[in-house]
Amino acid sequence: MGGHGPRERVVYGCAQLVRERGVTGTGLREVVARAGAPRGSLQHYFPGGKDQIVREALGWSAEFAAARVRDYMDGTAGPTPGGLFGAMVEQWRVDLRRRGFVAGCPLVAATADVAASNEALRAAIRAGFETWVGSVRAALDRMGVPAGRAAGLALLMISALEGAIVLARSRHELAPLDAVEAELRPLLDGAAR
Amino acid sequence: MGGHGPRERVVYGCAQLVRERGVTGTGLREVVARAGAPRGSLQHYFPGGKDQIVREALGWSAEFAAARVRDYMDGTAGPTPGGLFGAMVEQWRVDLRRRGFVAGCPLVAATADVAASNEALRAAIRAGFETWVGSVRAALDRMGVPAGRAAGLALLMISALEGAIVLARSRHELAPLDAVEAELRPLLDGAAR
Repeated sequence: MGGHGPRERVVYGCAQLVRERGVTGTGLREVVARAGAPRGSLQHYFPGGKDQIVREALGWSAEFAAARVRDYMDGTAGPTPGGLFGAMVEQWRVDLRRRGFVAGCPLVAATADVAASNEALRAAIRAGFETWVGSVRAALDRMGVPAGRAAGLALLMISALEGAIVLARSRHELAPLDAVEAELRPLLDGAAR
Repeated sequence: MGGHGPRERVVYGCAQLVRERGVTGTGLREVVARAGAPRGSLQHYFPGGKDQIVREALGWSAEFAAARVRDYMDGTAGPTPGGLFGAMVEQWRVDLRRRGFVAGCPLVAATADVAASNEALRAAIRAGFETWVGSVRAALDRMGVPAGRAAGLALLMISALEGAIVLARSRHELAPLDAVEAELRPLLDGAAR
């Protein structure tokens, strides 16, 4: 988001820090520094303070993930459920490798440290997961997965990917991502008519 | 752990707080309060400070999870891979329901906020996952899953369960746990000879 204004850079910078340290560990001072934004701009753009910035960061991240699901559908000749899952896993492989395994999913990070104590943030996390899971479910629908299974398979895909990202970060290895992809691809492709 | 001494209660109390708030959000003052331990006992039992307590809490949690896998194997007539996964999911259903979805897995919580910045804790997280994943892999071996698939299926089971716990906490609903169980049970049982 280098070409964006200070407001967008703050939201993006917050998302990146939450991915590395969680919400509790993310200070506004570091957000501003990473965003290259003037400290005074926070009050101007985000009168709701840190919670508002985190909510927007989670929403931005979820929209980004959902857009990549749609990109797969629009950019692939002959999309399949297993192919979609493979693309989602590959995007995370690239990200984990490039960043040296320091950054995970911001929705997971926020769930882990503030979902139990901050209802407004929990609502934002839930909405973020709905956006992402919903994009996968819609894609499965389009690929001919029966309605009775699309919702459950979308939850399985996101769950397995999120868990594998956590395991990969703890190990600094991609093996968990490889394992969930290898085992779920045939299951997913078998669900499409 | 009500019948245990102050040392064990501190480790257990720390694990519970990390499950709710992550490592960064867990203060020693609250750990001591929850453990009902004298504040002065911390220095005596844990000269390594908070990091030592968190490391022991993660290790204790992983051993607890691995023991429940072995309990399933020892206590079930005709164990199956799908039955094991169902038992693991059910244990989390009970825990999430009883605690009102406020507490997740401490290994996930610690990965989310400190794996990127604290190598000693990351090593403890990795070791914890190895303990748990290893217990599942050993169980799959015993149930006749071919060696070439047992490692990958163990990673899939833990990954899917961990992700589903996060989604369930964000939604205050058990549907993600139900979905991963329904979809993975046939896959898992099909892998046993």
